[in-house]
Order: sequence, then structure tokens, then C-alpha cells
Amino acid sequence: MGQISERRDGCSIQGTLDVIGDRWTLLILRDLFRGVRRFSQLEDNLGIAKNLLASRLSKLVAADIVTKIPYQDRPIRHEYFLTRKGRDLSPSLVALMRWGDRWCNDRTPPTLLVHSECGTPLNQITQCPTCDESLDPDEIRSRPGPGASVGS
Amino acid sequence: MGQISERRDGCSIQGTLDVIGDRWTLLILRDLFRGVRRFSQLEDNLGIAKNLLASRLSKLVAADIVTKIPYQDRPIRHEYFLTRKGRDLSPSLVALMRWGDRWCNDRTPPTLLVHSECGTPLNQITQCPTCDESLDPDEIRSRPGPGASVGS
Repeated sequence: MGQISERRDGCSIQGTLDVIGDRWTLLILRDLFRGVRRFSQLEDNLGIAKNLLASRLSKLVAADIVTKIPYQDRPIRHEYFLTRKGRDLSPSLVALMRWGDRWCNDRTPPTLLVHSECGTPLNQITQCPTCDESLDPDEIRSRPGPGASVGS
Repeated sequence: MGQISERRDGCSIQGTLDVIGDRWTLLILRDLFRGVRRFSQLEDNLGIAKNLLASRLSKLVAADIVTKIPYQDRPIRHEYFLTRKGRDLSPSLVALMRWGDRWCNDRTPPTLLVHSECGTPLNQITQCPTCDESLDPDEIRSRPGPGASVGS
């Protein structure tokens, strides 16, 4: 049972990495979060080859993370938008970026994520909603969830 | 300047993925967060080949994310512990897992992360410390940080 749970549980982390674990994909997602919409803009911003960008975008569309909407008919051109599933990747990108800010960029990050209204750099907190406390890694435990396998 | 900032900024996300973007590495880290310490336990839990496990652990030790401490002399055997840098990956693993819970496991996750003291499933919040509000992705903006390149 442990084994089966471990494997299914892997999906929650591995499943995410299957989608965003590719370097170009992450940078594309980052740009979409920043409001870049068009193929040519992504291409210019990222310095990525057309075929790589096209294949990454197709995968994201197939995974329902990105949706494309035509803005021009002849020739047909699309704009790319994050779906709800895609926007839900925001905390993952924020967390990966904050770790990199700290451990790759020596706490002097080239880009800050701020609250649009007041400009304050954001915080990301792991929290217990009952105790209303932020949690250290030591205070986090795993326990079987509703999807845990029973027996095999 | 935009280009250079983009590239350096890539490091904060890409740098993280360089370390944890590998599927086995993520599962090893997950097990270390759960208190697994020994090579043989990791091997059994993950069903990973010895040589793969050894190479992933070596990389994590070289990156100062994991430290190894001998617990036995003949033959020499080590226990593996997360360093401060490694423990700081907790929010990234939590975020990746929560996305997978929702989008790969249909909100019935096989494992829940809970507060050790009271057993409540944890929350992860992106927050503005000035306004004391949790932020939607739409309310997040990027601006140049202290490490942004100026000129050229």
C-alpha cells in the first residue's frame, strides 16, 4: 500500500513537472503571466527558435493551460492566454522564483513581484488556517488524503 | 537592457529548475522532507536504481541542498539531511504538489500536508504584507529589482 500511495502521490508533484518542468515552458508561462500575448513577442523576448516555441505552446494548449484566440484572419494569427488551470500555476512560479532569487541571485533579484495596487514586494506564506500561523517546514507533516489507496 | 534583465531573471526560475527539475530529484527531496534519511530507505521507497539514486544525491550534496553525515564506520554509511538551502525549497514543493492535487488528482489527493500540531491541512498564500491581503495572479506585477542590469 505504501508503494502504491507513493506512486500516486508522485503524480501531484511529477504531474506538475510534466507540464512545467521544461525550461522554455517555464519562461513562456512567466511571459504569459506578465501579459505577453503574441507569438512574435514571445519569440523576441525569449530568443527562442520558432519551432521550439510552437511545440511548447501546442503542448500547453493541449494540456488546457493556455488557450489561443485569433486576432487576425489573413494570415491567421492568435493571441495566447492562460486558462484557469494555467493561472493556478502562479504560486508554483512565485515559489520557484523566490528560491532562485535567494539562492542563485544572492537576494538581489533582477525582478521583483509586487502588489499591483501598492507596489509592495509580495510574500508567499505556508499557513495553518486553524492556528492562523505561518508554518516552518518542520511543522509540516504528511498524512493519507481522500485519494489514498487502501490495500492493493 | 530588457533582454539582459530577462535573461538574468531567468536564473531565478531556471536556476531552481536546474536543481529540482529532475523527477527523481523531486521525489528524493520529498522523502527527505518526510524524514527519510538513509540510502536504502530512499531506494526502497522510490524503487530507484542504486546508481541513479547515488548520482542524484551527489548532485544535491554538491549543490549544498543536502548534507551527509556518517552513522556507521565499517562499512561507511551516511544519513542524508536537508540543509537550510534545501529546507528553503519547501514552498516550491508545496506549490507544485498543490497544483498536482488539483489538476492531476481531481482534488482527491493521496497525501495531505497538514500542520503537525493540530492536523489541519495547510494553506499556501501569496500575500501583500502592506495591505494584508492575499493576492490573485492578476494583482501581481513585475518590476526591476535591486539586481536589474542598467544600460547596455
